[in-house]
Amino acid sequence: MRLSQSFIPTMKEIPSEAQIPSHQLMLRAGMIRKLSSGVYEFLPLGYMVLKKVEQIIREEMNAAGAQELLLPALHPKELWEETGRWEIYGEEMMKVIDRNKRQFGLGPTHEEVITDLVRKEVKSYRQLPVILYQFQTKFRDEIRPRFGIMRGREFIMKDCYSFDKDEAGLKINYQKMVQAYKNIFTRCGFDFRMVQADSGNIGGNLSHEFMVLANTGEEAIYYCDACQVTMKAKEPEGAAAETIEKQLCPSCQKEMKYSRVIEVGHTFNLGTKYSAKMNATYLDEKGESQPYIMGCYGIGVSRIVAAAIEQSHDANGIIWPKQISPYQAIVLPLDVTNEQVKNTAEDLYARLKGQGIEVLLDDRDERAGVKFKDADLIGIPVKVVVSTRGLAEGKIEIKLRQTGEVFKLSVAEALSKITELIQV
Amino acid sequence: MRLSQSFIPTMKEIPSEAQIPSHQLMLRAGMIRKLSSGVYEFLPLGYMVLKKVEQIIREEMNAAGAQELLLPALHPKELWEETGRWEIYGEEMMKVIDRNKRQFGLGPTHEEVITDLVRKEVKSYRQLPVILYQFQTKFRDEIRPRFGIMRGREFIMKDCYSFDKDEAGLKINYQKMVQAYKNIFTRCGFDFRMVQADSGNIGGNLSHEFMVLANTGEEAIYYCDACQVTMKAKEPEGAAAETIEKQLCPSCQKEMKYSRVIEVGHTFNLGTKYSAKMNATYLDEKGESQPYIMGCYGIGVSRIVAAAIEQSHDANGIIWPKQISPYQAIVLPLDVTNEQVKNTAEDLYARLKGQGIEVLLDDRDERAGVKFKDADLIGIPVKVVVSTRGLAEGKIEIKLRQTGEVFKLSVAEALSKITELIQV
Repeated sequence: MRLSQSFIPTMKEIPSEAQIPSHQLMLRAGMIRKLSSGVYEFLPLGYMVLKKVEQIIREEMNAAGAQELLLPALHPKELWEETGRWEIYGEEMMKVIDRNKRQFGLGPTHEEVITDLVRKEVKSYRQLPVILYQFQTKFRDEIRPRFGIMRGREFIMKDCYSFDKDEAGLKINYQKMVQAYKNIFTRCGFDFRMVQADSGNIGGNLSHEFMVLANTGEEAIYYCDACQVTMKAKEPEGAAAETIEKQLCPSCQKEMKYSRVIEVGHTFNLGTKYSAKMNATYLDEKGESQPYIMGCYGIGVSRIVAAAIEQSHDANGIIWPKQISPYQAIVLPLDVTNEQVKNTAEDLYARLKGQGIEVLLDDRDERAGVKFKDADLIGIPVKVVVSTRGLAEGKIEIKLRQTGEVFKLSVAEALSKITELIQV
Repeated sequence: MRLSQSFIPTMKEIPSEAQIPSHQLMLRAGMIRKLSSGVYEFLPLGYMVLKKVEQIIREEMNAAGAQELLLPALHPKELWEETGRWEIYGEEMMKVIDRNKRQFGLGPTHEEVITDLVRKEVKSYRQLPVILYQFQTKFRDEIRPRFGIMRGREFIMKDCYSFDKDEAGLKINYQKMVQAYKNIFTRCGFDFRMVQADSGNIGGNLSHEFMVLANTGEEAIYYCDACQVTMKAKEPEGAAAETIEKQLCPSCQKEMKYSRVIEVGHTFNLGTKYSAKMNATYLDEKGESQPYIMGCYGIGVSRIVAAAIEQSHDANGIIWPKQISPYQAIVLPLDVTNEQVKNTAEDLYARLKGQGIEVLLDDRDERAGVKFKDADLIGIPVKVVVSTRGLAEGKIEIKLRQTGEVFKLSVAEALSKITELIQV
């Protein structure tokens, strides 16, 4: 893609509305814009990252045996009354009344809808287990939307639901999903921890949260990697530390660390919470009616994009982990009025594209400083600098966003080096 | 994918709620289920087709220079009041009131939102043209939702918007989009015609509809391919024919055909309809403020899936065009209790998957009749039949869903034949 033709409206100033780095940088890098409180537009650069995250999740969910579908956003009130959650969710669920005066909720989560689907279609133990998931826009009327897409009112979630005939089956599928989540967050480049958690509005007996370590997280954990122990910190640092220390073995206490965290995933052992209330049953081996044993597994897809930035940025901008970077490389001709610089950059750009590399070409007639600033701001891992001075020596400069490492190479050497750097 | 583990709930009976073939077959093939009037769930098989259609559209839109983004579904009332469409859309737009008593519409289309975004970011003629598009769930409270996903209240659209500095620019981009649409509908396997149309609620000076020929269409056209003339039929067949014949040259009249049609795409020359009302301007070469010249381009993504079935099915089920078939081939071991049949089928399945072919294995312990019926119902182009009788002769049977053509081949020959058949 040519930057001159791209809709990537970068900003120099830090927008006053944004308090945390990811919110500031997503606005400044032209990734998102605000339409209304907690309601954001994903611009092309932001959407590319979102799609990359989505694809990583999709691959791992499919590999774990889950099947993708798409459920509606409009949920009939009657379905939510079956579980009592029409009342429980209250104002957090946005409501629509249609032209025939029927009431709908805009789905903040999909347990009722998926349980309704499965109870109509899965009648026998022979059809179990079933694991279904979707990527979908969720609506939650947060009291205090904040931090950009981190806590929005309209956001993208991957939600997954498992249906088993018994606890043993659920245990197997729950473990599969936990492993899939670990794979996903590792592939996204996260430093994360898994921790036992409260089940909140979703409910069930047991749940785990997946927490990305970040200075600006809204929650906090204590963890000891040596002992593989992680616990949520419910109170301010000092007080909670004492409480938690008492529960840990002495060797752990020395290694224990405190960190603010961002929740990016949540797995729930739901048991029969929904199936019992909704009379969602199958016939077992003896022909007897039994409620499904359910699990549910959510990932905040849009939140992952923000969390990645919280975890990886510097004073100059975003530093994308390779797997979710919108582009793999950016070619920077420092002086497009110099024919040799322009042609060399165009040639490199064409060759990299030809090799299937996702590459940006900053073909704008802008000063070198502007180009470097924008490249650092949007955080592309590999910068390829073509300059008059470099070409005089027959060299091109490759600069890594993360480490600042520089390679000066001939054009021919540069091509294979870029490919190598991208694949590492 | 193994059919035994797939969530593909097929049905033998024709559901009484469905009147047209696509609706009947999507329900019977386990592609969709109804949640509420005009609100449907896409099950895994239906979702796979939807994703294939989406990918074809994405490739052609990107090739035409459009950039993908994602706009919100929640639209502030104030924005729609700028164009007067809050009143005009009336009950067709679903409304939400949030906990702070602010009013939102659920986006039935996105002219206001995209124009608001572009007016904030594009200030100079140097930044034009810009072409932006998205795939998104739209909400329209239809008076009479019908025909399954053909006319739903919640559905998937690809909507695209172009912003130019002058009419000449719009003309170029409009033509690019028309060509992209022709490519898309050709790749989807459609027999379609383009016809000049009314602009309705979207408005503007000039618009074109892309119509798929189908017996069950809600609209109708007269067309003559020899003269390359297509006209919408507004009255019942007879009356309209006379009117239209008068407008056509004599050679055309002989060749003129009548057909019912399904609208799958619509392109609009909007001119300054939205930009003028919303004060959405750029500075031209002289530093003077000018409204953008806009175009908008929609495709009913979910409707395409239904239209494809309307155009291609028989008494036994769906006949997928290869490009949008959920799977490319299905392997049918006719007797899974026969070890040789089972092993040969498993081996074929593994090899086809290894070659990157999207293949289903009907590993269920079901009668041959059930397997053939389901394979025909879900419409997979290439059936690979492994039977005791066939293997006695050292043969496998390849049967094409569309033509009924049969090939009896050895396992080794079968593999290359299947690859060949899929690629044609």
